[in-house]
Amino acid sequence: MVEIRRYLHQNPELSFEEVETPAYIAAYHKKLGLDVRTNVGGRGVVATLRGGKPGKTVALRADFDALPIQEENDLPYKSKVPGVMHACGHDGHTATLLVLAKVLAELKEELEGNVVFIHQHAEELAPGGALPMIEDGCLDGVDVIYGTHLWATMPKGTIGYRTGPVMAAADSFTIKIQGKGGHGAQPHKTKDSIVIGAQLVSHLQQIVSRRVNPLDAAVVSVGAFEAKNAFNVIADTAKLTGTVRTFKEDVRAAIEQEIDRIAKGTCLASDASYEYVYRRGYPPVVNHKKDTEFVVDVAKNVPGVQQLEEIEPQMGGEDYSYYLERVPGTFFFTGAEDATWKETYPHHHPKFKINEDALLIAAKLLGAATLSYLKQNAEKKVELTK
Amino acid sequence: MVEIRRYLHQNPELSFEEVETPAYIAAYHKKLGLDVRTNVGGRGVVATLRGGKPGKTVALRADFDALPIQEENDLPYKSKVPGVMHACGHDGHTATLLVLAKVLAELKEELEGNVVFIHQHAEELAPGGALPMIEDGCLDGVDVIYGTHLWATMPKGTIGYRTGPVMAAADSFTIKIQGKGGHGAQPHKTKDSIVIGAQLVSHLQQIVSRRVNPLDAAVVSVGAFEAKNAFNVIADTAKLTGTVRTFKEDVRAAIEQEIDRIAKGTCLASDASYEYVYRRGYPPVVNHKKDTEFVVDVAKNVPGVQQLEEIEPQMGGEDYSYYLERVPGTFFFTGAEDATWKETYPHHHPKFKINEDALLIAAKLLGAATLSYLKQNAEKKVELTK
Amino acid sequence: MVEIRRYLHQNPELSFEEVETPAYIAAYHKKLGLDVRTNVGGRGVVATLRGGKPGKTVALRADFDALPIQEENDLPYKSKVPGVMHACGHDGHTATLLVLAKVLAELKEELEGNVVFIHQHAEELAPGGALPMIEDGCLDGVDVIYGTHLWATMPKGTIGYRTGPVMAAADSFTIKIQGKGGHGAQPHKTKDSIVIGAQLVSHLQQIVSRRVNPLDAAVVSVGAFEAKNAFNVIADTAKLTGTVRTFKEDVRAAIEQEIDRIAKGTCLASDASYEYVYRRGYPPVVNHKKDTEFVVDVAKNVPGVQQLEEIEPQMGGEDYSYYLERVPGTFFFTGAEDATWKETYPHHHPKFKINEDALLIAAKLLGAATLSYLKQNAEKKVELTK
Amino acid sequence: MVEIRRYLHQNPELSFEEVETPAYIAAYHKKLGLDVRTNVGGRGVVATLRGGKPGKTVALRADFDALPIQEENDLPYKSKVPGVMHACGHDGHTATLLVLAKVLAELKEELEGNVVFIHQHAEELAPGGALPMIEDGCLDGVDVIYGTHLWATMPKGTIGYRTGPVMAAADSFTIKIQGKGGHGAQPHKTKDSIVIGAQLVSHLQQIVSRRVNPLDAAVVSVGAFEAKNAFNVIADTAKLTGTVRTFKEDVRAAIEQEIDRIAKGTCLASDASYEYVYRRGYPPVVNHKKDTEFVVDVAKNVPGVQQLEEIEPQMGGEDYSYYLERVPGTFFFTGAEDATWKETYPHHHPKFKINEDALLIAAKLLGAATLSYLKQNAEKKVELTK
Repeated sequence: MVEIRRYLHQNPELSFEEVETPAYIAAYHKKLGLDVRTNVGGRGVVATLRGGKPGKTVALRADFDALPIQEENDLPYKSKVPGVMHACGHDGHTATLLVLAKVLAELKEELEGNVVFIHQHAEELAPGGALPMIEDGCLDGVDVIYGTHLWATMPKGTIGYRTGPVMAAADSFTIKIQGKGGHGAQPHKTKDSIVIGAQLVSHLQQIVSRRVNPLDAAVVSVGAFEAKNAFNVIADTAKLTGTVRTFKEDVRAAIEQEIDRIAKGTCLASDASYEYVYRRGYPPVVNHKKDTEFVVDVAKNVPGVQQLEEIEPQMGGEDYSYYLERVPGTFFFTGAEDATWKETYPHHHPKFKINEDALLIAAKLLGAATLSYLKQNAEKKVELTK
Repeated sequence: MVEIRRYLHQNPELSFEEVETPAYIAAYHKKLGLDVRTNVGGRGVVATLRGGKPGKTVALRADFDALPIQEENDLPYKSKVPGVMHACGHDGHTATLLVLAKVLAELKEELEGNVVFIHQHAEELAPGGALPMIEDGCLDGVDVIYGTHLWATMPKGTIGYRTGPVMAAADSFTIKIQGKGGHGAQPHKTKDSIVIGAQLVSHLQQIVSRRVNPLDAAVVSVGAFEAKNAFNVIADTAKLTGTVRTFKEDVRAAIEQEIDRIAKGTCLASDASYEYVYRRGYPPVVNHKKDTEFVVDVAKNVPGVQQLEEIEPQMGGEDYSYYLERVPGTFFFTGAEDATWKETYPHHHPKFKINEDALLIAAKLLGAATLSYLKQNAEKKVELTK
Repeated sequence: MVEIRRYLHQNPELSFEEVETPAYIAAYHKKLGLDVRTNVGGRGVVATLRGGKPGKTVALRADFDALPIQEENDLPYKSKVPGVMHACGHDGHTATLLVLAKVLAELKEELEGNVVFIHQHAEELAPGGALPMIEDGCLDGVDVIYGTHLWATMPKGTIGYRTGPVMAAADSFTIKIQGKGGHGAQPHKTKDSIVIGAQLVSHLQQIVSRRVNPLDAAVVSVGAFEAKNAFNVIADTAKLTGTVRTFKEDVRAAIEQEIDRIAKGTCLASDASYEYVYRRGYPPVVNHKKDTEFVVDVAKNVPGVQQLEEIEPQMGGEDYSYYLERVPGTFFFTGAEDATWKETYPHHHPKFKINEDALLIAAKLLGAATLSYLKQNAEKKVELTK
Repeated sequence: MVEIRRYLHQNPELSFEEVETPAYIAAYHKKLGLDVRTNVGGRGVVATLRGGKPGKTVALRADFDALPIQEENDLPYKSKVPGVMHACGHDGHTATLLVLAKVLAELKEELEGNVVFIHQHAEELAPGGALPMIEDGCLDGVDVIYGTHLWATMPKGTIGYRTGPVMAAADSFTIKIQGKGGHGAQPHKTKDSIVIGAQLVSHLQQIVSRRVNPLDAAVVSVGAFEAKNAFNVIADTAKLTGTVRTFKEDVRAAIEQEIDRIAKGTCLASDASYEYVYRRGYPPVVNHKKDTEFVVDVAKNVPGVQQLEEIEPQMGGEDYSYYLERVPGTFFFTGAEDATWKETYPHHHPKFKINEDALLIAAKLLGAATLSYLKQNAEKKVELTK
């Protein structure tokens, strides 16, 4: 498993540019004798293991794209591709699933149902690979889906779980204010876009402070304020760019609308105009209660799992959300932090690392959950047919 | 003159409530043999002195109302009326004009034209007495008008003058914000009128800073912010009340409109509504150039005038403006500060005082200007008829 | 039970003014033969039922004060006291506990432990009755505490529960800005307190939008902005009053500090000064996990309980928090909404009502939890002594 | 004169880079027989014409630097230097003075005093050429100084004048806010520099609206707001750059201080820090009353002068201010707009043009003022010596 992960780590490919990685995955699964479909939804790979006995179908998902980051780790298996790095652990996700497939393939005859291995491209870059893969049928016949994220900032041995919203909807927006430029000494002949933009930034604070239910987590941040002119000029235009994070669709929709309302009113107050673009990223990842509790129960008996921790929702986004909008399931976090590290680097950092033992834990838990699910549901079936 | 002034000082009457004062004035003029009209435009008195020779007509104006202030001076001629005081010098204005009438009446036969003494009520309270007196004919046939204000914060012996705008338009406005009240713990169910009002106050700063020509003096001040609720309530409404001061009609009109624009946009940004009332006070007092220069020239030879000072415009308002909108003329300031005072109190202060010698200076300058004007214009007439 | 409740409803007493109510309660318990202490922590009543067998001690709490509200319901048992009303259901809480005491008193000999009935005064008015009652010993020897709130906006038959924070810390604050007053036409000679206050209100929005973890619920609301002057005056002072709601002590402390920081900076920017007072209300009510789950388990078998609902935290405050800071326990909500009502009025409304059947449900659940707890812990004890 | 102007127009040189232009000027004056000093205060040229009779000394000033603008006019004498253009009329100023020198040189014997021709470099770029030239003696022995600016937006034939402040002090400032950057989804771990900068821009509006006497013209404009980050980042720093325009030293100094006060308070409110740099440009150009009125009187009899207009102060800056701080004099505007133009382009525009007839008017007025002054003062001298 470590070998596979290191091979992938050395050969990362960017989102929507994956060629060798899906080929490698497909070849691996074919060798195991699974049914393999390639170019699913573009560049995804779906491998199906049909059990020897009838039963339900479990999907397991791993993403396999890398990031446009120059690796700064000094490792024997450092990325060979300049400016591209597996800095989010997707190499580990893929290795975990491949080796798990190998193990489950050996149990094929005893398997009371099927397992679908969803190897997804382009998780890092909206609109993502999940949606086209679903549209291309990767969830057809699937009863439940499990997935995990190796988590470098959580101690190895810990499994983080949460029912309900676990990862945020991560959207972005741009507001371009069109005032009227002029000479800095003659403000009365202008509509000062910097003054308007400043008011707008201040007013946007009210969305979270006044217009969202205090019990609903939400963030509206302006990351860029661009209005670069000579010191003695009054700005003709100003451009604000920012992000919105939410966990509920109604909150998300309300914020999209409130930004527009505030921009409209603020510009009207200065007789200026504006252009507003709101770009939706992935929806929030919302774990199903029953399935999350099921995996937590299973985890209690998985070797290597030392702690089960109910975590806070994460403000980052994931297109795993699309799967959970369609089938039951859960998405959990597998701790991959090494206690001996002097410093832990976050995901997407040039020095991002994971403790590779975590892969085994992830594989065991995904495997145990799969087998338990198939078994439980198979038994029930039998009972029902009595 | 001092005697008359002190009598009036002891018997002050509020704006639009003057009864004894106009009766006193009318009686005085009648005794001098002038044509007297009473109840002009309400409570005004107009006395006309017709000269023995043909010529132009000069109007002189003095206001005679007092203020709702309790006098705190310890004087033998202190106000006898509780809570009412001549705290702006109108008693002095009236005494000046009466005694001047007496002097000019003695010169009646030599007078090459006429003098109209306009004794105006209700200068202190909008809509003022000037406009109804004008509508009631007090300026009919008048060629030029002169007036002065005794000025307690300018040294006795100084005459302050200015061509063009010399006193501001003093308007007021009210904005009532209608948000949606609610519980302080549930902002998302409300439209917080205090937050909206706060933005509005901040935005109004831009009118002067961005929307008025920097070379035009203007003020927009909010004097009252009213939204008094329990600490754990979100305000349903908030009321702002303020004043606007300007010296030009176009600036004034633009500000009236900009306040509305800003209120509209700010409320729209919060989906709230508002009511906006703008109340025009007196227009700016704009002195005519030729007439101001004429009076300044005359003043150079008036005994007691030690200094002629071109003053800055005053931000306060005066309904003398209405006269100057209709006939040429000027309005100057007669210094009435006593060099021996330990402290000088401003107009409208309970300890307001004037040096009474200033009355004589004012009378001499008004008289000299009147005589010079009549003479100059009479001579020209003669020349023209040659 | 209904009779008692109606009697109390007709005879409401305000917080810290309760006289008849505690006397009535004390008499009732004495008649049952319980140990009764009166004037506990002021006006509270504590009645102890000592079981016939050794065991743990369960406390049950009901508050008994009313509100300064004029009842607008047209009921035969309407409040007899003008301007005072049981508009929050405390009459029901008290009746529930009294009747439950009667039932448990009958089981006295079988009881494997003790039950302490805490009848608390002054829940509605900070600093509340809980703390002085605790300081006066009402929790001495208590192992666990249970309490409920009848909830008019939740259907009868529903029990609302939540582990962790369930009711907010409800604090208040006042900021008095000391600027420098003056004439509305001369802003440069002043420090405009309304402008400063307006900025302050806007900046306070940032506390929730920028300075509190988006995953932590928090509210900062300004309910009053007081600066009432004549239209042509610039405000010398402005006073802001508001509320803060939080669920965690660190968030609460941070907000208290951030308000000060913002007031300090904002006033400094205008060379003004300020006075800031932050008044802590009750801490958040934080339910203990084990005890909450225990009561939920018990509730599954209580007749009349049709639904168990995990509720969102409530933004209101309760001094029940003080009990849970000292002993384990939980505070749940007993639905009291009648399905036949045309309109449901919220707590503290002049038309507030409850379906009285809910009292029985509350009593049964509190009783069942008490008995189960005593039994479970008694058995364990026996086992341990084997 | 037109020939010289066109030659200079074709060969513009940037401020502080002038080489050929001063050489050309010096050669011209030498040929006329004047005393010529070069490299005065760097690159300036001073030519002195000593009259045949004793008397006062008049200085005339013309600037000769060009601007970094690419000319867009299609003219036979268009600028030959890419990206450099006489877009402010300094070529005309120089030509005017040279030809005037030629004419006055012819009157040398009759001249009752001396004329100093100050050809100044680097007017367009602070710290300017005026101050070093003064320090290098260009005003030594000078009794009065006259100067003009050809003005493309004022009709040819009009002379614009003003007593007192006529051109503003034009300063610039930079505020760099140092907050604390972070992820857009985690505002509570950051100090959001964009939010702080936005508040700062809003607060700066108050300087003009609240802290400067409404009767004093002043402008504070922010021309650049720079904080360019990814959409999902919170800004670590933000940089504001702007300009301040004033006409009085005390107002200027107060604004410099108020910007600092506001930046300090605003940053303190967010626990951020800042760097503030205020760069003083030229002081205001303040015309002397007596000398301005003198030139206006002279202008009444200058052929080509059709109108004398008292103009509003200009918000732009000029280092002519330094001369007037040291010797009496005035700076007037010579209309150079052509009535036949379809569109008039302002100064510093790539299509800036002047009607060349204006040069002659400027020369005649400067010449007439010079001769009148020398004559008047010579006569007085004679009288005094009688």
